[in-house]
Amino acid sequence: MTLIKSNGYNVTIEDNSLDSLSNFLEIKKYTSYFILSDQNIIKLCLPHLLIACPKLITAQIIKIKPGEKSKSLKFSTLIWQTLIDKNADKNTLLINFGGGVISDLGGFAAATFKRGIDFINIPTTLLAMADASLGGKTGINFNEFKNIIGTINQPKGVFINTKFLKTLSLRQLKNGLAEIYKIALVNSHPFWNELSSFSEKTSYIKLITKSIQIKNKIILKDPFDKGIRKSLNFGHTIGHAIESEFLNSEAPMLHGEAVLIGLLIESKISYQKQLISKPMLLEIYSVITSHFKLRSISEIPISSIINRIKNDKKASKNILLFSLINGIGSFKLDVIVSETQIQKAITYHNNLIK
Amino acid sequence: MTLIKSNGYNVTIEDNSLDSLSNFLEIKKYTSYFILSDQNIIKLCLPHLLIACPKLITAQIIKIKPGEKSKSLKFSTLIWQTLIDKNADKNTLLINFGGGVISDLGGFAAATFKRGIDFINIPTTLLAMADASLGGKTGINFNEFKNIIGTINQPKGVFINTKFLKTLSLRQLKNGLAEIYKIALVNSHPFWNELSSFSEKTSYIKLITKSIQIKNKIILKDPFDKGIRKSLNFGHTIGHAIESEFLNSEAPMLHGEAVLIGLLIESKISYQKQLISKPMLLEIYSVITSHFKLRSISEIPISSIINRIKNDKKASKNILLFSLINGIGSFKLDVIVSETQIQKAITYHNNLIK
Repeated sequence: MTLIKSNGYNVTIEDNSLDSLSNFLEIKKYTSYFILSDQNIIKLCLPHLLIACPKLITAQIIKIKPGEKSKSLKFSTLIWQTLIDKNADKNTLLINFGGGVISDLGGFAAATFKRGIDFINIPTTLLAMADASLGGKTGINFNEFKNIIGTINQPKGVFINTKFLKTLSLRQLKNGLAEIYKIALVNSHPFWNELSSFSEKTSYIKLITKSIQIKNKIILKDPFDKGIRKSLNFGHTIGHAIESEFLNSEAPMLHGEAVLIGLLIESKISYQKQLISKPMLLEIYSVITSHFKLRSISEIPISSIINRIKNDKKASKNILLFSLINGIGSFKLDVIVSETQIQKAITYHNNLIK
Repeated sequence: MTLIKSNGYNVTIEDNSLDSLSNFLEIKKYTSYFILSDQNIIKLCLPHLLIACPKLITAQIIKIKPGEKSKSLKFSTLIWQTLIDKNADKNTLLINFGGGVISDLGGFAAATFKRGIDFINIPTTLLAMADASLGGKTGINFNEFKNIIGTINQPKGVFINTKFLKTLSLRQLKNGLAEIYKIALVNSHPFWNELSSFSEKTSYIKLITKSIQIKNKIILKDPFDKGIRKSLNFGHTIGHAIESEFLNSEAPMLHGEAVLIGLLIESKISYQKQLISKPMLLEIYSVITSHFKLRSISEIPISSIINRIKNDKKASKNILLFSLINGIGSFKLDVIVSETQIQKAITYHNNLIK
């Protein structure tokens, strides 16, 4: 078992057990438990959780539909209503059991119910294990704007059991890998080099541990996203806009899938800003495209992407600020980027990925 | 000008100026301003604000209806939508200009927009000046439950100009006095004695300053409402239930009006618990009824009040915990009170106040 100390709570990583969770529940004396999850996870993973932690047999299950569309005010309202109906008090624990959608939504509902009740995250996806469950960012989407309503509230614990990865499709695994590639690209050249030669045989537990260690260092220095934590937004300004474009389509894009495209386009912008060399840009394109199959975004009007960026929660009035990379494994914050530069980078990307 | 240092921000009290606000706006470089207010305050007070702070001429005004019913998810959604539509960024300031409804609602919307933007409170009612604008409790009502959705987020400043009190009706002034009497009853016997001989000639600026000083000491020791801050809930367990009962009636009760009844009934419970003597209980009834005209609550079924208390956000599963007084000017937290005891106290009250 690996234990990483974060902002007032521990992240534990185990490969086939939930012992640390079981201990946590023994020590803390909660009056009641609520488990937020989706129907797939309830079917595939809940039995394991209940066997590992018999205390949770009495927990109230709050079931939502899988997918980004559940990260909404409607479902937050459903959670609040269930907590009220089932007499949750201030000493109730909400257990977010699932992927990033679950921990973002559940974290927000818990942070705002009775001015804040405790919550923990038990991530079941690679994306949530390596990234989303850590750092206290909670949020819901509102009128198609990603995470525009939310808070920064730390969980009381993050309990990772990599056994749950076996329930994931290859597409879901790749979705999580996207954020791991981002963390490496922004913060660690050696880790990026390791990932360049990633194969199916690579141990996920190692990747997760490495990702969390890197991310944890950053968020401990800047929990409220005022400074260096913004480096982790690399790829997300463009990525969120693309994800939003597909949110109501018949085939929505997964978060990681959109972020990968964001990473590439923002790498191109970093090159335009002379922050990385041409060989570096080509290396990034080559590594990403050799490990991931990317969807074309050429049917989206570029003006539509730019409009979404302007309304992104990271945007500052009339000025578009990006967190870019400054060489591989390093970053530069708050770089002013013009609409023309974004347009140029997307056009470049669309010529390569058709 | 009196300046009181609170949790990372200053409270300034002036009797006919907003100089401290004007200085604050000069020092801080916000990209845009939004003023949340209601139609009465916009008419009566906004001109004074704009003359004192010409910087705010460009501010976007968000207008809501006066009254407790505006403290809802619907109006929080309206604020979020306006912030989006008018391109608010993370460096935007939301100015809560009005009474407790405005600062609770605006504080909640600001705390959750883009994971938290800055907000300040400019209270225009006695209740907000002496109590609500201080301490960072934000919240909205949800399905008739008072403040059940909310956060604890500190404002960046509270700017009190007692000139605005001149716009208030006697009923509104009394509404604010109620919370001042509560603070004295719970925390300061000498202040309670002063209030016992309160007359129309008493200086409000003195009362406000004293209230804030007492409340500030408490919230600095316990910002997250885990310990002694709960003493300030005295009168509110019963008070909130009564306020909720009248929320959808043709003549809603003001918050302070309900709290006064709560103070009396909970004083009776304190007496039942042998925390105060009979003469003290009679003194409290005498002082309160000589300064305030109380509405009868005898038409409300006692069982309905008890049901609401069970769902109050302060309630712990199956156990009803009250913050009571332990002599005048002192308190006892987390006292277990039975339904029978509540029933007895309400019946006693209804026999006295018909």
